Amino acid sequence: MRPLGEFEVIDLFTRGLKGPAPGVAVGIGDDAAVLRPPPGQDLVATVDAVVEGVHFGPAFAPEDIGWKALAVNLSDVAAMGARPLFALVAVAMPRDLDPRRLARVARGLGACARRYRVAVVGGNLTAARELSLTVTVLGSVRRGGALLRSTARPGDLVAVSGTLGDAALGISPGAPSALAARQRRPRPRLALGARLPGVARAAIDLSDGLVQDLGHLCEASGVAATVELERLPLSPAYRRAARGLPDPFEAALAGGEDYELLFALPPGRLAAARRAAARSGTRLSVIGEFDRGNGVRVVKGGGETLRLRRAGHDHLRP
Amino acid sequence: MRPLGEFEVIDLFTRGLKGPAPGVAVGIGDDAAVLRPPPGQDLVATVDAVVEGVHFGPAFAPEDIGWKALAVNLSDVAAMGARPLFALVAVAMPRDLDPRRLARVARGLGACARRYRVAVVGGNLTAARELSLTVTVLGSVRRGGALLRSTARPGDLVAVSGTLGDAALGISPGAPSALAARQRRPRPRLALGARLPGVARAAIDLSDGLVQDLGHLCEASGVAATVELERLPLSPAYRRAARGLPDPFEAALAGGEDYELLFALPPGRLAAARRAAARSGTRLSVIGEFDRGNGVRVVKGGGETLRLRRAGHDHLRP
Repeated sequence: MRPLGEFEVIDLFTRGLKGPAPGVAVGIGDDAAVLRPPPGQDLVATVDAVVEGVHFGPAFAPEDIGWKALAVNLSDVAAMGARPLFALVAVAMPRDLDPRRLARVARGLGACARRYRVAVVGGNLTAARELSLTVTVLGSVRRGGALLRSTARPGDLVAVSGTLGDAALGISPGAPSALAARQRRPRPRLALGARLPGVARAAIDLSDGLVQDLGHLCEASGVAATVELERLPLSPAYRRAARGLPDPFEAALAGGEDYELLFALPPGRLAAARRAAARSGTRLSVIGEFDRGNGVRVVKGGGETLRLRRAGHDHLRP
Repeated sequence: MRPLGEFEVIDLFTRGLKGPAPGVAVGIGDDAAVLRPPPGQDLVATVDAVVEGVHFGPAFAPEDIGWKALAVNLSDVAAMGARPLFALVAVAMPRDLDPRRLARVARGLGACARRYRVAVVGGNLTAARELSLTVTVLGSVRRGGALLRSTARPGDLVAVSGTLGDAALGISPGAPSALAARQRRPRPRLALGARLPGVARAAIDLSDGLVQDLGHLCEASGVAATVELERLPLSPAYRRAARGLPDPFEAALAGGEDYELLFALPPGRLAAARRAAARSGTRLSVIGEFDRGNGVRVVKGGGETLRLRRAGHDHLRP
């Protein structure tokens, strides 16, 4: 197929993404977008990239790549207790990339944008050696209401949404479809996140593995945390797939890409958190407690501390 | 040198970029930044990437890469008539990149951020096959005051800031330093841009070559434009370097990376535009006129139309 020029590719990519949207005075097509987020609210802004050979491989359908590139950013927005508004999409691609493949990437991105009501308002296109999408998302949250990593206190409960480790076990080509879907089409916990300001005291999204991300939250808050192995929420598909593994808990503790929310919950607000979870159709589990001190400890039923081979994902180490 | 882990590299990169800034409630280090842009204004948002082997090569000092990655975005903000506020920086890099090189990239980025008073509020780090920086910039502009590409009218003058073609002639390793500086350290026309709302009727930044970018503005506005070759603003260094070339005007017409502002000016506002240019220390040239119709025509002194070998830069065609 004839390689297209830059402006043909931009047209192809943006065809399904254009259109009027609330708060968008000028969208795709000018030097910059002109936006009107809701007045009186705080703006949240985050950026994340997915890169061929690092974040996705041949098992990903092009639509999955587009979906995931946006969804991982929406998970960050959810962890702030915010709702997403606008996205900017920077595409880098080999000059000979099949335009039909790129059109399918755009379709997956568009599906995610429609599902979570995000307006794609701009972007960029450049040549590169491998395909990557770098997505910026802007959102809004009640003034002063954003959930931070730095505000957990000793005595708070460690709470987590959904189930852990599914995405990590969903990487291999032959993975059961329930696990593969968690890896390729993460569902950001926006409905729950938007209900957590005033309920949770601190939050982080689980992208690099439970122990590592909980460690970030502990460090930012100046607290320690203890997690009980038996309380980790594991899906039936996870339990089946993990049975044959040398360490059946490793994926749940350190696997990464869960895109669940982990948050610090004052014990008196547990009932409110359960209501928020029920209203958003999300499972909620209390898996441990924050303490004075520092570091993350994982304990077994008998109180014995687990030794961890690794805490989570390092994007610069394969 | 030992390759660093992800969080060591993030620490290294952000060390000189952190710190309190107006409008930044939460900066680098959480799931997302929490921002408070000036109330009652429109927000502008743009993203642009610089990629090794595409936008910069071995002639670039690492500091130049960092500077340019931010500066090219600021040029888009200037073209909207807006002032920049916040930046998010997504870095993709080979796993074995020398951390000292990366620290120097960050220094160049920091220098540009300080020079133009932009707060770096977040970012992302990932492995990739080549080094690239994808920068998102948010800015603000008086409500409804943003300069668009789509609002030029027949009879408006074609005006341009600074000089053209310097950056294109500054690419080659042996280029005179005045031209090389335009290529490696573009100076976004923020001071002029901020004075253009209410003066200019439409604007675009010149990144892909005068004829091509003017063509974009004409297409968006539904007008034609005629440019007079003799009126192109050329620097002394350009004139000297272009003397030996087969087509001494090609770099000015189609070279790209000028990062000047091109705008449509109602003739009655020429004096106001000249005052805005003088106050911002920027050269301003009227190089032609908008008309009914479509397309861009470049004419010589005698009225003869020039045939162009190419209009400008295509980022997917080397």
